[in-house]
Amino acid sequence: MQPIDELIERLKKGDRRAVAKLITLVENDESKAKVIIKKIYPLTGNAHIVGITGPPGAGKSTLLDKLIKEARREGLIVGVIAVDPTSPFTGGALLGDRIRMQRHSTDPGVFIRSMATRGSLGGLSKATNDAIKILDAYGCDVIFVETVGVGQIEVDIVKTADTVVLVTIPGLGDDVQTIKAGLMEIADIFVVNKADREGADITYFELTLALDLEKEKWEKIGWKPPIIETVGTTGKGVKELWEKIKEHKKFLEESGKLAEKRRTRIEEEVKTIIAGIVAKKVEASLSEFEDIISMVLNKDLDPYSAADLVLEKIVGR
Amino acid sequence: MQPIDELIERLKKGDRRAVAKLITLVENDESKAKVIIKKIYPLTGNAHIVGITGPPGAGKSTLLDKLIKEARREGLIVGVIAVDPTSPFTGGALLGDRIRMQRHSTDPGVFIRSMATRGSLGGLSKATNDAIKILDAYGCDVIFVETVGVGQIEVDIVKTADTVVLVTIPGLGDDVQTIKAGLMEIADIFVVNKADREGADITYFELTLALDLEKEKWEKIGWKPPIIETVGTTGKGVKELWEKIKEHKKFLEESGKLAEKRRTRIEEEVKTIIAGIVAKKVEASLSEFEDIISMVLNKDLDPYSAADLVLEKIVGR
Repeated sequence: MQPIDELIERLKKGDRRAVAKLITLVENDESKAKVIIKKIYPLTGNAHIVGITGPPGAGKSTLLDKLIKEARREGLIVGVIAVDPTSPFTGGALLGDRIRMQRHSTDPGVFIRSMATRGSLGGLSKATNDAIKILDAYGCDVIFVETVGVGQIEVDIVKTADTVVLVTIPGLGDDVQTIKAGLMEIADIFVVNKADREGADITYFELTLALDLEKEKWEKIGWKPPIIETVGTTGKGVKELWEKIKEHKKFLEESGKLAEKRRTRIEEEVKTIIAGIVAKKVEASLSEFEDIISMVLNKDLDPYSAADLVLEKIVGR
Repeated sequence: MQPIDELIERLKKGDRRAVAKLITLVENDESKAKVIIKKIYPLTGNAHIVGITGPPGAGKSTLLDKLIKEARREGLIVGVIAVDPTSPFTGGALLGDRIRMQRHSTDPGVFIRSMATRGSLGGLSKATNDAIKILDAYGCDVIFVETVGVGQIEVDIVKTADTVVLVTIPGLGDDVQTIKAGLMEIADIFVVNKADREGADITYFELTLALDLEKEKWEKIGWKPPIIETVGTTGKGVKELWEKIKEHKKFLEESGKLAEKRRTRIEEEVKTIIAGIVAKKVEASLSEFEDIISMVLNKDLDPYSAADLVLEKIVGR
């Protein structure tokens, strides 16, 4: 029996170490990722995937720590993928907040995994998609995907979740206003965390106003994103948040939106995989194109024409 | 004469409105971008490209506002590209801080442009690269590229600048520590902004320690990133920062690193353009592959095999 088959057999039997090994394999080895996902794919589709996003410092990990507890209280098997997209060079580090979350890792019903960028554009999205599938096949009932950053890739990652929770805090600057604007349209549930802080009411009010502006849209969809005030450190509001997450899941199932969301997710996934294949081909053969790059450097060729030349040569293989 | 040729003629004569129009064209129309860049490419290569990055709320725009003043005092023509990667849906908004910066826009020696994500992966990097070239061809001596976010795409954008300035502030949480770790390796100059705040000394000290850890690396390169304390609102330290930016430029030129950096930049650009071409092809033809997506949805096919199928069909054209 091949090692991968063996690992998958162990995964099916609920072996946590097999889960960890399989995720490491899909992260590091593209060709093995392909084999693994092909084999486990029929086992997936049961987990509820919950994206948790928001600006740095919003207290997402602390909140998540409390959400895990709520889910565990109901006997659910919980998966957590903490995405750390900002360290393409060092490979990412485990954060303090996340270390606190690790105390759940002695609980056999919780599987926590940190994932960092692997360089190439789209690499992280792909690895995250694959890890979600492994946790899903393992039997997780709910999978939380937490992203630290607030850039495009983070948006790409969370927007394919079944339920997207946007966590914000009072008193952030202009930058963050924009971030909220960008994430506004993908969030199913809003959280004002650190709600015991000054300015929480203002943030709540601003969000309410912003949501009311899109009233017609929510009516059409049939779900108006609720705004929940929480205090991650004390756990205040977390129960309500968990209830809303479950309520949104029910809404998705009953309205038929779940199938719709999943179709979009598959489309995004296929696009990401294709982008990865092409990027890898280019990366692998760039050294062959030194002359072309030199021509661009010397202004004998422009970058677009260079791209056409390289693509032509690669695709012809 | 074609409109594009006319715009380029006007660009060469220093017409600011032509600059704005050309950037809008490269942002919105891929095929025109190609034509424009091909034509202006021989005019580029003179500007010093300075990336300014750091977490949201670090005060980058206020600092930049003061840096523009310094550059203008020396009679330099200044370009600013404010990259706003977080709003793939709404198209991005002009920020309060950036509106303050706009007061320079009545100065004919300053050209400021906000750029937002245009959906597709890599689209923003490509549009930013193109806009830099237009400003370069226009005659900008220095082009500041400011990114708000801290994700992978932001890193991709700034890492190709000649000089990268990383702005941080005292007293940020764990998340931001990681962000710094990720950006550490691409920064040529560190700034501790809001240095009048409590904890500034600690941040300065932490950065010093982190830099000292990589002492051998800096010695090999020949440039150890300086750490500069600034107060953006009063302008304290900005003069020193500007001097360091110029010093780094001189270092790049004299050490031959500039050519090296530019080669890397061209490689990255070519990769980005290729990724864009492929993504566009996939996007345009995804509706033809509804059956394949349905098979994945029904678990009759896995996403990797679907990607292979789609790619095969697209490439064959």
